[in-house]
Amino acid sequence: MIRLNRQCQLLSAPELKIMPTYKLTYFPTKGVAEPIRFILSYGGVDFVDDRFNREDWPKLKPSMLFGQVPILEVDGKKINQSTAISRYLAKQFGIAGRNEWEALEIDAIVATIDDFRSKIAAWHYETDEATKKRKEGPLFKETIPFYLENLDAQVKKNGGYFVGGALSWADLLFVAMLDYINFMAKTDVIGKYENLKQLKTKVLDLPKIKAWVEKRPHSDS
Amino acid sequence: MIRLNRQCQLLSAPELKIMPTYKLTYFPTKGVAEPIRFILSYGGVDFVDDRFNREDWPKLKPSMLFGQVPILEVDGKKINQSTAISRYLAKQFGIAGRNEWEALEIDAIVATIDDFRSKIAAWHYETDEATKKRKEGPLFKETIPFYLENLDAQVKKNGGYFVGGALSWADLLFVAMLDYINFMAKTDVIGKYENLKQLKTKVLDLPKIKAWVEKRPHSDS
Repeated sequence: MIRLNRQCQLLSAPELKIMPTYKLTYFPTKGVAEPIRFILSYGGVDFVDDRFNREDWPKLKPSMLFGQVPILEVDGKKINQSTAISRYLAKQFGIAGRNEWEALEIDAIVATIDDFRSKIAAWHYETDEATKKRKEGPLFKETIPFYLENLDAQVKKNGGYFVGGALSWADLLFVAMLDYINFMAKTDVIGKYENLKQLKTKVLDLPKIKAWVEKRPHSDS
Repeated sequence: MIRLNRQCQLLSAPELKIMPTYKLTYFPTKGVAEPIRFILSYGGVDFVDDRFNREDWPKLKPSMLFGQVPILEVDGKKINQSTAISRYLAKQFGIAGRNEWEALEIDAIVATIDDFRSKIAAWHYETDEATKKRKEGPLFKETIPFYLENLDAQVKKNGGYFVGGALSWADLLFVAMLDYINFMAKTDVIGKYENLKQLKTKVLDLPKIKAWVEKRPHSDS
């Protein structure tokens, strides 16, 4: 059933779309900032890619929100937390789900990818050699294969993307993070996972992502 | 400038709001599921609070998405990842920010609270006694005070809430998680932080949260 509204509607003037200015501050690496750089590039917006020298970090750290980077400045307003920033930008560029359930599915898989990265990072950054050695077996024989099998199966089930058969920021985030994950794990983790490999190719073939990857400064991690 | 729309608008019939059915599956504890229970309670919706016995976990784990709980079922559709679930519900109950920037600020502080919890959990669940001992000093003397001072300052700066001078799911999540954090840390972590203490009181005084806390099953963690 449909009702007719008899009152005439007031519409605001066509909004003048003024593009915000973006500045992203991080180490001179991909790390956890690369998903943000991928999403900004996908969105086709210019951003200041502010990379500081590692030796300046102790001096800079106290001035950062919660002592952390990446920090994104949007028209001068600062915010921390890489995944939160990625989600915010993804919503603006229309890659955060076509409905609330898809937005949830994307958030869930992103959180899972974050868990996966964190488990590898916990091993990689462990400073005690005996502890590191002890963690190595379970990580490489159980944890990493478990996550990759499940991630690969999810991409297969969803038509070549993590959610809903369409590109979302979960796909960009995963592919953007791969170099850092591989650097920490010292191996190409997706080597034998066909669906994840195809996803990687598909994302890196997006013209705006391709252009970003070609022009970004070199870094190992 | 304002334009007048000359076409009359079609409005859909008042939507018949059919409340979805919710079922939350988790250990018989607060843990990382309690924020979801708080948010569902705040939203005033009924949910099945499905708690399994600890000894059944090995049997149940393989059937869970990514081997994890909590799992929320919404009209039978299952999803994992506690923070993603909390955000999804919070949006429906109008406590996920009044604009996109606030949504981002809420996401950022939630991610920070998650980091804080994870750092305490990494120590609490460490099985190697020597490693645990080594981590204890830095955790309790540096990490915990650093986070709490910054969290307290943020609540002070934002009129008694984490974001925008108004209740959001970040506030519910923090207070819901406190019992679990205190259980792991073996101390009342917010003891000397006045703004966080006031926030806790304020949240626990919300009638629907009060009712939930009174009726929930007892658990230590």
